[in-house]
Amino acid sequence: MSAGGNYMSDARYQALPGFRDLAPQEYALRTYLLDAWRKVAHRYGFVEWEAPMVEPTDLYLKKSGGELPTQLFRFKDQGERDVSLRPELTASLGRIVATRHLDYNKPLKWYEIGPCFRYEKPQKGRLREFVQFNADILGEAGEGADAELLALAIDCMRELGFKETDFVVRVSDREVWLQYAAQHGIPEERAQDFLSVIDKLERDRPEISAEKLASFGLAREQVTDFIAHPPAGVSPRYDVVREELKARGLSNYVQLDLSVVRGLAYYTGLVFEIFDQAHSLRAVAGGGRYDGLISTLTDGSVDMPATGFAMGDAVIAHLIEACPEARARRDAALAPHTCDVCLVLAAPEMRSSMLSLASTLRDAGVRVDVPLSQSKLTKQLRHAERCGATYAAVIGTEYPSIELKSMATRESRRIPLEQLICELIPH
Amino acid sequence: MSAGGNYMSDARYQALPGFRDLAPQEYALRTYLLDAWRKVAHRYGFVEWEAPMVEPTDLYLKKSGGELPTQLFRFKDQGERDVSLRPELTASLGRIVATRHLDYNKPLKWYEIGPCFRYEKPQKGRLREFVQFNADILGEAGEGADAELLALAIDCMRELGFKETDFVVRVSDREVWLQYAAQHGIPEERAQDFLSVIDKLERDRPEISAEKLASFGLAREQVTDFIAHPPAGVSPRYDVVREELKARGLSNYVQLDLSVVRGLAYYTGLVFEIFDQAHSLRAVAGGGRYDGLISTLTDGSVDMPATGFAMGDAVIAHLIEACPEARARRDAALAPHTCDVCLVLAAPEMRSSMLSLASTLRDAGVRVDVPLSQSKLTKQLRHAERCGATYAAVIGTEYPSIELKSMATRESRRIPLEQLICELIPH
Repeated sequence: MSAGGNYMSDARYQALPGFRDLAPQEYALRTYLLDAWRKVAHRYGFVEWEAPMVEPTDLYLKKSGGELPTQLFRFKDQGERDVSLRPELTASLGRIVATRHLDYNKPLKWYEIGPCFRYEKPQKGRLREFVQFNADILGEAGEGADAELLALAIDCMRELGFKETDFVVRVSDREVWLQYAAQHGIPEERAQDFLSVIDKLERDRPEISAEKLASFGLAREQVTDFIAHPPAGVSPRYDVVREELKARGLSNYVQLDLSVVRGLAYYTGLVFEIFDQAHSLRAVAGGGRYDGLISTLTDGSVDMPATGFAMGDAVIAHLIEACPEARARRDAALAPHTCDVCLVLAAPEMRSSMLSLASTLRDAGVRVDVPLSQSKLTKQLRHAERCGATYAAVIGTEYPSIELKSMATRESRRIPLEQLICELIPH
Repeated sequence: MSAGGNYMSDARYQALPGFRDLAPQEYALRTYLLDAWRKVAHRYGFVEWEAPMVEPTDLYLKKSGGELPTQLFRFKDQGERDVSLRPELTASLGRIVATRHLDYNKPLKWYEIGPCFRYEKPQKGRLREFVQFNADILGEAGEGADAELLALAIDCMRELGFKETDFVVRVSDREVWLQYAAQHGIPEERAQDFLSVIDKLERDRPEISAEKLASFGLAREQVTDFIAHPPAGVSPRYDVVREELKARGLSNYVQLDLSVVRGLAYYTGLVFEIFDQAHSLRAVAGGGRYDGLISTLTDGSVDMPATGFAMGDAVIAHLIEACPEARARRDAALAPHTCDVCLVLAAPEMRSSMLSLASTLRDAGVRVDVPLSQSKLTKQLRHAERCGATYAAVIGTEYPSIELKSMATRESRRIPLEQLICELIPH
């Protein structure tokens, strides 16, 4: 084996921009995150589903508006179909729920974890292929569903080691803005445009939003004042959700923040976004109620209230790095530990016996590594150390007597084969 | 909620041909299979990695030959790059190993489980998006690596409940054919073409292969005789591997079958395919040694021996259905069991107490379902039954005294809150 260097800087030997090669060390980081999501979703009684990676482009054009259609990996397949890599999961979810909901108890509590694709400029926390955790509750119109979903999102953050001082859930209510628009004489057909202006208020330069709001007959200060000091009781939905979260001990993680609107046109009621407290990164997660979407997707055939959120893996990975407690928790979970016992062959003529022992142990669920060709004893023991094995078992001419070495304490004992098997097989 | 019917037969509300919608019931079947693969890979000390779903098309054109380039989902991205959805994983693996191998102990024992995409005619056991399990050993040239890999493949089948009478591993050796070609005066530059003819021998009509073989100066019978009665010791590699498998108690699963060649040009030594014994389905798995590939992919910068196999999820799903023992094992693993305890609210005014209890239990890792809105007691208890809960816990005005009902025995006990928490939290 020789290791040249030039190929590593050669674009031909790299993943595409915004795509990731995950060698086992990086993959383990992802697994840690995905396992946490899955564990919390199961605690909440959610079940997993999955959609195709490629969908008819129509599915996305029909639904969302916003900037999504411009970010598609869109192409014609060999059968001349206009298809796209999925940029998000809600459109596919709508289809699957619409065709399959009769097979399931309501409300549906479904989650999904898998790749999504958006052609955006790659930067910190933003990739072209990323993994998204989607959780949705369908068939329940009440605020109990919104609260359950918010609690799930908060507990995903807590599971990763984040505290109140690390993140905040900014909850808003689109109905409040629609009422505001009506009260200020904005015609219904311009209501979505008005929401878009509110959505961009934090990102647009003040003179730009002032100009946009003027076209609705509003002063910018008027709107920012309303956001800074929302009247008590302005969102009865939020008040109910807050009570439900308070009963769960989770109300300190949320705040009413009417500046949150969410870009996509299909949201209908409560919406929310999770941010790091310093607000130095993009949103960690976002979601909300989308009661009309299933009906839109099925041309009115199926009507079902729904609420959901998505959480990507890219921003949260940065947040874990930035938060000492979350990082420590992750690193503790990642301790190398790829096998329980490394078999070490001290006498080449005992190879068959060693392989037989490996089979017995593996059949019983023990994670076993074996030397694939003959090498020096010291090299084999070094390997046992590096792969994080709990034990090394040295098989020599004394077989079926075996030397069992604890890699943690460095202590060795010579024990008979039967005893080794008994000690290693989990009971 | 209304359930129209027309949308279900409308193509707009279906996944693309060869792609799958996996509602939770179907997803659970996939999870069963993927968990089995993962479990066995871990027993063998393999670690997981992952590649991008989209790669530069060059990666596939450079490497393989065969029919793969005609089956690509290939397109230009918004940056005018010629890209393809990954049809297989070995090309990406080569790149990642070439750039990262210095970070890892040799031999590398790496596996991957994820979607692949091929534009083929969808039929039984063949989809356009399928999940592939890839296992590879890199950095070990000896037959010990081939045997370890074959044992892993066999144990994946055994883990799923398949026996000797259900499947067979047909092992072949490309070196045998290269020697055969040399001995029969076939020039080196035509050797790959000769291998392609052998590869198609089972599928081509006899007169077609006779004609093809005549162009190499060979009679068809001559070749089929050689396959039917391979001379003893014709593949020393196979003999070593067989001995290693015998020591592991796995030699009954393999047979030397020189008709196996594998389509792709990059294989160099031992190759194998797993078939159902009736040979009524496509190959369940296939693989072999590809010692030259890493060097080819890096223009000679990194040279590393390698052997690997891939196993798809589509054929094996059919095989599980067809094999009573495998099916029974799967169904037993799939028993519905999405939550440990369903909280049932008998008195609406106790909702906060119920939510607080749900939080306590979930924080301790218990899987808990709660009613999201108020509904009748009977309806809530029916839900507890359907979601496969172990217990229903009825919270009423007697709280903190709670009625705990076992869903299996139908027995109810009234116990205090503290006792409930103690009993439900896993120790």
